[in-house]
Amino acid sequence: MWDRLLTDCNVCTMVPTRNDPLGIVRSAAIAIADGRIVRIGKRTDMAGMKVGEVVPMHGAWVTPGLIDCHTHLVFGGTRAAEHALRRMGASYEEIAEAGGGIASTIRATRQASDAELLESSRRRLRALMAGGCTTVEIKSGYGSDVRSELRLLQVAQRLAEQEPVRISPTLLALHALPEGADRKRFVRQAVEELVPAAADAQLATAVDGFCEGIGFLPHEIEQLFVAAEDHGLRVKLHAEQLSNRGGARLAARYNALSADHLEHLDAEGAEAMAEAGTVAVLLPGAFYALGEKQLPPVQLLRDAGVPIAVATDCNPGTSPLLNPQLAMNMACTLFGLSPEEALAGMTVNAAQALGIDDQVGTVAPGKVADLVAWRIEEPAELGYWIGLPGPERRMLAGVDC
Amino acid sequence: MWDRLLTDCNVCTMVPTRNDPLGIVRSAAIAIADGRIVRIGKRTDMAGMKVGEVVPMHGAWVTPGLIDCHTHLVFGGTRAAEHALRRMGASYEEIAEAGGGIASTIRATRQASDAELLESSRRRLRALMAGGCTTVEIKSGYGSDVRSELRLLQVAQRLAEQEPVRISPTLLALHALPEGADRKRFVRQAVEELVPAAADAQLATAVDGFCEGIGFLPHEIEQLFVAAEDHGLRVKLHAEQLSNRGGARLAARYNALSADHLEHLDAEGAEAMAEAGTVAVLLPGAFYALGEKQLPPVQLLRDAGVPIAVATDCNPGTSPLLNPQLAMNMACTLFGLSPEEALAGMTVNAAQALGIDDQVGTVAPGKVADLVAWRIEEPAELGYWIGLPGPERRMLAGVDC
Ligand SMILES: [Zn+2]
Ligand SMILES: [Zn+2]
Repeated sequence: MWDRLLTDCNVCTMVPTRNDPLGIVRSAAIAIADGRIVRIGKRTDMAGMKVGEVVPMHGAWVTPGLIDCHTHLVFGGTRAAEHALRRMGASYEEIAEAGGGIASTIRATRQASDAELLESSRRRLRALMAGGCTTVEIKSGYGSDVRSELRLLQVAQRLAEQEPVRISPTLLALHALPEGADRKRFVRQAVEELVPAAADAQLATAVDGFCEGIGFLPHEIEQLFVAAEDHGLRVKLHAEQLSNRGGARLAARYNALSADHLEHLDAEGAEAMAEAGTVAVLLPGAFYALGEKQLPPVQLLRDAGVPIAVATDCNPGTSPLLNPQLAMNMACTLFGLSPEEALAGMTVNAAQALGIDDQVGTVAPGKVADLVAWRIEEPAELGYWIGLPGPERRMLAGVDC
Repeated sequence: MWDRLLTDCNVCTMVPTRNDPLGIVRSAAIAIADGRIVRIGKRTDMAGMKVGEVVPMHGAWVTPGLIDCHTHLVFGGTRAAEHALRRMGASYEEIAEAGGGIASTIRATRQASDAELLESSRRRLRALMAGGCTTVEIKSGYGSDVRSELRLLQVAQRLAEQEPVRISPTLLALHALPEGADRKRFVRQAVEELVPAAADAQLATAVDGFCEGIGFLPHEIEQLFVAAEDHGLRVKLHAEQLSNRGGARLAARYNALSADHLEHLDAEGAEAMAEAGTVAVLLPGAFYALGEKQLPPVQLLRDAGVPIAVATDCNPGTSPLLNPQLAMNMACTLFGLSPEEALAGMTVNAAQALGIDDQVGTVAPGKVADLVAWRIEEPAELGYWIGLPGPERRMLAGVDC
């Protein structure tokens, strides 16, 4: 007995075949039972099974629900004023040094009540969901101490309970040194108190850091990674965004799920990532919003065999991007990804970047039936349109939502 | 007797005051009668009038409905494959010379049935409407002769009848020479047959051309402008996009409503536009999608006092952009406009670019009540977010739609 049978759809399974990176099945039917995909194929091959509900899809293109594997969704305030400053020529680093940048978001986040934080984050989350996301990673990182960091993860947890979407929570423990904080003390607290507390409360599935001159240095990040390992948490890293600090190699040494940004990645870093199975998460929204010139070395990643994911990086300062399809378009337009690479980047490879590729990211028997249906003529349109409205249908574990 | 009174809203009237380019009125009420705005002010100043319906706006920001003053919305096919080619390094001009580009859209448009053309165009139109547009300009230009050009304008007319949005139809008579067409004969036909036919059938309110090496040359455009003048139609021009051909000066000489693109505009052109009252329509979507490097001379336009509008340029080849807010964000991020300039560019100045500024484009007594309500904290967010979902409320002549 199947619960639902979706009929008359064209499916990008994202399980590649020799000639087809999207693993397309045309005029297909998808059988769903207990929230999981049971079978994909021609409808005529599925005769004889009892079906609860037949759902005609009218020729829509079905893909795995989009997975936004890198966001900083929970924050107070906006940085619209800083956006105007950057427009007049101030660099990201200059703004950060002037007390703007992340520091101003840390202040606005502290000033926001729990309810305000929840509701403003919910609006952004719903924009991503309307755009086709069925899984959204949310990082903390705008807290200034243990308590305020855990508060952000609690907001993420509440969103996960209240909204029909999967949330993958990440403790971004070393993001920015709060104003006036002692550097050594802050790092020690992150390592010795914050990571254990988040792990004990099961508020995060991974630990992340910002490895950069204006962030934290490799030896500080390494202490964080050791703590994460000790508490059974996977790691991720913001690496080589504004300069090469060897972050990708460091991440690979700790079997990181992903290294993210990577504009300044070198060959050695790419090879280390390939060996460790660390996903490269490209964030074209930040490249666009900051007006960066240094492109991430996409060909290097391809040659080394590093899986490439794409994400919105939704955050108030460097990537206030609210549409996942637009992240795919930017990955194609700005970074030269093919439409097929961009779609893999927000499905199968994004799942790997979150360590949930056993559950979601492809349309395959056994996977959770997180699916979206697009009113398009061909899948390349998902990389082509600039700001396509969201899918006409979104299913979480086989249920419309 | 007022039909509706919108209360508890913050309004960007777009009627500038000395210190405020947006003409903001906070905690305002807007009175509407017979589809027009009657009064804006504090609610307490509006006591004593009979009101059909009080509409609480819960603190939303109200702006004039967005006006997308430059689109090529009606076309067959997509150019997703060409998008992939450009990604691999082919230039717009190379693709055009290889028979791709506009020529391929002319073919796909010819092959599409009336119903297909109407429905695919409707999907794009609805995306723009959902994004906040209450007025959308639609150009023809993918026809290959008189009959097929008029067919495109008829599709635009049908959309205007069927969808709750104002359509401003423009005859783009000299856009691209169809494959195999004789140049002189094509221009003569456009001038002697197409313009009169469109004018007689009242299918267009303006006439447009593409003044460029790969389009048409100034002496050809001038013949078109003379014909437009003879038939009582205003003119517009695609000018100085890929090179400087003196298009802006030519447009100004014919009192053009607008000159559009303008990346290669010079000071002389800007001054001519200022004198003629010709609006500069900036199209950052095409700049983004083509990966152009030459920025339009925004400071030159400001200094000369040329009103600046912003539009999506929605078209299959060079700007498949479906979100008007994103056009505003790109104008800020890529072209350095302020958020206030970008909003003026899709309201009051866009209305001027279409010659309908006596009717729409500001929230002022006497104007048609085309209004949108945004769930934001401050108006600068309209330039700040990348791909903000559309407004929570859209009114055409005071009626929700
Ligand atoms: Zn980040
Ligand atoms: Zn155009």
